[in-house]
Amino acid sequence: APADWPSRAVESGAFPDRETYYDSLHEATTAAVRQQVRERERADDQQLVHAVRSMDDARRTANELAERVTEWGQSRFGDDGSGIEYARRVADRDPEDPTEAELVGLAETVVAMDDRADSLRATIEETTPAVAPNLAAMAGPVLAARLISLSGGLEPLAKSTSGTVQLLGAESALFAHLQGNAPSPKHGVIYTHEYVRGTHPDERGSAARALAGKLTIAARVDHYSGERRPELQAELDDRIERIRSRREE
Amino acid sequence: APADWPSRAVESGAFPDRETYYDSLHEATTAAVRQQVRERERADDQQLVHAVRSMDDARRTANELAERVTEWGQSRFGDDGSGIEYARRVADRDPEDPTEAELVGLAETVVAMDDRADSLRATIEETTPAVAPNLAAMAGPVLAARLISLSGGLEPLAKSTSGTVQLLGAESALFAHLQGNAPSPKHGVIYTHEYVRGTHPDERGSAARALAGKLTIAARVDHYSGERRPELQAELDDRIERIRSRREE
Repeated sequence: APADWPSRAVESGAFPDRETYYDSLHEATTAAVRQQVRERERADDQQLVHAVRSMDDARRTANELAERVTEWGQSRFGDDGSGIEYARRVADRDPEDPTEAELVGLAETVVAMDDRADSLRATIEETTPAVAPNLAAMAGPVLAARLISLSGGLEPLAKSTSGTVQLLGAESALFAHLQGNAPSPKHGVIYTHEYVRGTHPDERGSAARALAGKLTIAARVDHYSGERRPELQAELDDRIERIRSRREE
Repeated sequence: APADWPSRAVESGAFPDRETYYDSLHEATTAAVRQQVRERERADDQQLVHAVRSMDDARRTANELAERVTEWGQSRFGDDGSGIEYARRVADRDPEDPTEAELVGLAETVVAMDDRADSLRATIEETTPAVAPNLAAMAGPVLAARLISLSGGLEPLAKSTSGTVQLLGAESALFAHLQGNAPSPKHGVIYTHEYVRGTHPDERGSAARALAGKLTIAARVDHYSGERRPELQAELDDRIERIRSRREE
């Protein structure tokens, strides 16, 4: 038979009664599980950070090298077009001499790099909701992953102010502003969200502020509790609707 | 029977005699062939320019992305190493989950990019001697191709001064110097030549000047006549030997 730990705990005088013992046990195990979850989350959010940065590097590299393929290809084929689309056409050619084989081979690598960026994006779309369910639902998984990446992880994002979240990704514009060379930026990467981009320019600052506020709460809920809070989305929808309606009055 | 063009030419009064006719004919055909050769050369030297720039882009890109693979890989495998060598090890792994498959896939593309740079280099080594035989023999095919690429072609290189050739590839150092922020650069990419790199620092400026002078002549011979002139190499060898012996007196 298993040892009767509740009785022993009370007999030893460590706890006044069995109820207090069970409460303490529950508290301790919950804390341990929460700690484990948080460590697991940290590991997962860091994988997301690597994936987002790799996706951006792969896409940028593919685009840069596609311009090189375009310049070289046009000197040989006098063909129209540019960028990745052009590199894909060059990659499909049968090379006619060793130099052309190098050009076609380079184009093939460019295509592989662009395909890798697509594949990374698909994996980010799949894994972000597990790491940050509320943030992913509200921002979309790729923007959510980008915010986590720009902060360096979910925990630092959860500890950021709403104003910081609003400007994540606008660091160079903010720096130029602080040096007196530019107007204050209204948004960073959250610009890509429909609620910012799709709002009239005059109200876009308000929309960015409202979105950043809710995203910051979503990140905190994801980090500290992990529960889904669909009402956050409803509150954001209302707020944006009110901001947009100002233009129509 | 073929028409007797020499007689007709003299009879028509276009040429005073058959000898003048043949001289003019020779001159005209030689000029036409030289023109053809030069157009062919221009096409070939431009292919070389594209190949060199592609090689440099592929190598730089592979190195940059290898650093991304290193950061990501170390977060997963806690493994030592860095750069291309590390990316090659990651590319050989069997991925254990979808996120790791992205990492391994990225590493594979990095390896393909580095292999492409190697392959471009081999092709440049094969084709440069046909475009610029004297320059390739004296500078080595890759440095020769790099000088042609930095000038924008064999013709502009042949029309450059020796001082320009000496500093090709040192444009940013030269710019800093002209702005008063740096000492005058002594050499650009010709630094990679054994005759510069292998000479004592005190005499390196003289060695760079001597090498640049002969390379400029080699480029001119390659562009204007295309004949091999091995004595240029012997003259350079003598000159460098004398410069180096100054340190031993």
